[in-house]
Amino acid sequence: MNSEFFGRWSAGVLDRVEQALDAWVPANAPAGLGDAMRYAVLDGGKRLRALLVQAAAEAVDASASTGGVDAAMRAACAVELIHAYSLVHDDMPCMDNDVLRRGKPTVHIRFGEAQAMLAGDAMQALAFEVLTPDGVVGSEQVEPGVQARLCRLLARASGQSGMAGGQAIDLASVGQSLDEQTLRDMHHRKTGALLRASVQMGAACGGVQDSSPVWAALTAYGEAMGLAFQVVDDILDATQPSDTLGKTAGKDADANKPTYVSLLGLEQARSEADALLAQALEALAGSGLPAARCQPLVALAHRIVNRDH
Amino acid sequence: MNSEFFGRWSAGVLDRVEQALDAWVPANAPAGLGDAMRYAVLDGGKRLRALLVQAAAEAVDASASTGGVDAAMRAACAVELIHAYSLVHDDMPCMDNDVLRRGKPTVHIRFGEAQAMLAGDAMQALAFEVLTPDGVVGSEQVEPGVQARLCRLLARASGQSGMAGGQAIDLASVGQSLDEQTLRDMHHRKTGALLRASVQMGAACGGVQDSSPVWAALTAYGEAMGLAFQVVDDILDATQPSDTLGKTAGKDADANKPTYVSLLGLEQARSEADALLAQALEALAGSGLPAARCQPLVALAHRIVNRDH
Repeated sequence: MNSEFFGRWSAGVLDRVEQALDAWVPANAPAGLGDAMRYAVLDGGKRLRALLVQAAAEAVDASASTGGVDAAMRAACAVELIHAYSLVHDDMPCMDNDVLRRGKPTVHIRFGEAQAMLAGDAMQALAFEVLTPDGVVGSEQVEPGVQARLCRLLARASGQSGMAGGQAIDLASVGQSLDEQTLRDMHHRKTGALLRASVQMGAACGGVQDSSPVWAALTAYGEAMGLAFQVVDDILDATQPSDTLGKTAGKDADANKPTYVSLLGLEQARSEADALLAQALEALAGSGLPAARCQPLVALAHRIVNRDH
Repeated sequence: MNSEFFGRWSAGVLDRVEQALDAWVPANAPAGLGDAMRYAVLDGGKRLRALLVQAAAEAVDASASTGGVDAAMRAACAVELIHAYSLVHDDMPCMDNDVLRRGKPTVHIRFGEAQAMLAGDAMQALAFEVLTPDGVVGSEQVEPGVQARLCRLLARASGQSGMAGGQAIDLASVGQSLDEQTLRDMHHRKTGALLRASVQMGAACGGVQDSSPVWAALTAYGEAMGLAFQVVDDILDATQPSDTLGKTAGKDADANKPTYVSLLGLEQARSEADALLAQALEALAGSGLPAARCQPLVALAHRIVNRDH
């Protein structure tokens, strides 16, 4: 897939994801709650998780499964809702105390702390609402078994064994000299779990079973990308100016938080990112999936590892 | 069912619920997160929501459905996890700023605000993890369709159209003179939605379909009990001393929050509670369910309306 084709593919996906989020995040939730939720999730970010869901769904041809297209859009929006809620809570004064995100005031600055906490809570619930649509009878209904499986994958990636657990380790790690294994465990949960789950959820939309080689290959791809994402994040934090990143560079180092760069050095961190890219591509190549269908996943892997912000 | 029999029934249920929560809320979640989660949910409260799930499951004989007993225990624990997380977040300084709950320091006092927020977030995720067990193959597996339906009911009761939405109205209502309809809408969402969902989830464990008269009857029971619970709460808040309630009496009135008592007067509020009890019992009597199986629901309705704390 050349970059022009990938550009078209991702633009189409992003357009549909924004439309779906716009439809599913309610404007009419009571007492300003809907405004806070929409502020937090619409028009924001690179939608990397949604792209991974959609690319994995394309790799396994989810459109051939009953309700697979709808399932993949629901899964893409659900992971974005979880990601967005985690940022809202993360930005609050008792956590990172950030006042700006993507150049806009953070949710608690704009709507107050109580509303920000409630909006985050409601966004987590909404993710599971989106995954379990009310019974649409007909050929396009997402199969109940797929709904349950998507909830299972998302809940485990979001909770104590995933994102929330990683944030707890992060919280406890400030000023500590973490060893490499603890650092990896933290990132494996904090960002890796949801990135991996995005790929798995896309695969689940195509009915790929846990025991199949395709599931194992896509899981390996998701694992590698989850880790690579964080390694590159640490490299960019150490090397790029704030205005390129759209956030305060060097913040982790200033807060004395351990990073892959502080632990491995810049050169070794860069080698690790390249090795993870190679692992991910190798997993895809050995998956038995048609190469043409894997092109969005291949392109995303290159983007994740070679991005400059 | 005489009160001795109900006492035995509820003691048995509560014992099994505590054991299940003890098994499912992880002690080994990282960096103290598991301790905070367990502190927040174990050994706490009257478990009214779990009792409603189990009583409704008994009314529809969920034990006759594949995996129905396991489903009903998972549903009971999931609603308790949602309820417990909402209390953790509600108690935080940006919300009600409570330092004691059931005579113990609140979670943020004991573990810090950041850990309390994360514990609440992880407890919400855990509720959905509990509802979607990893594939246990065999006759006791909860059917995927039931798993998806339980997630659907719980997510809608927890999010913007339910509990979180009600909390947003509550937040916006301090010092406002709410009219009766807004007050009812607030409580309908804030506490009513999860109580109603508890009854519905119990019914779903027995495979009762949305379109059936039994579903309608149990929904009516759940609606009436959701509202009655709050009316009685307001009556107790206005009439009982703090040491009987185990919380600060008169707090809502002091905060200038509207209540059923401030709106309707004590006598009218009491009549309303009695009328809701009659409605709930009538719904059960007309449900076509065997009266013997409905005894726990009948006893719970009396408890909710005639409790003294």
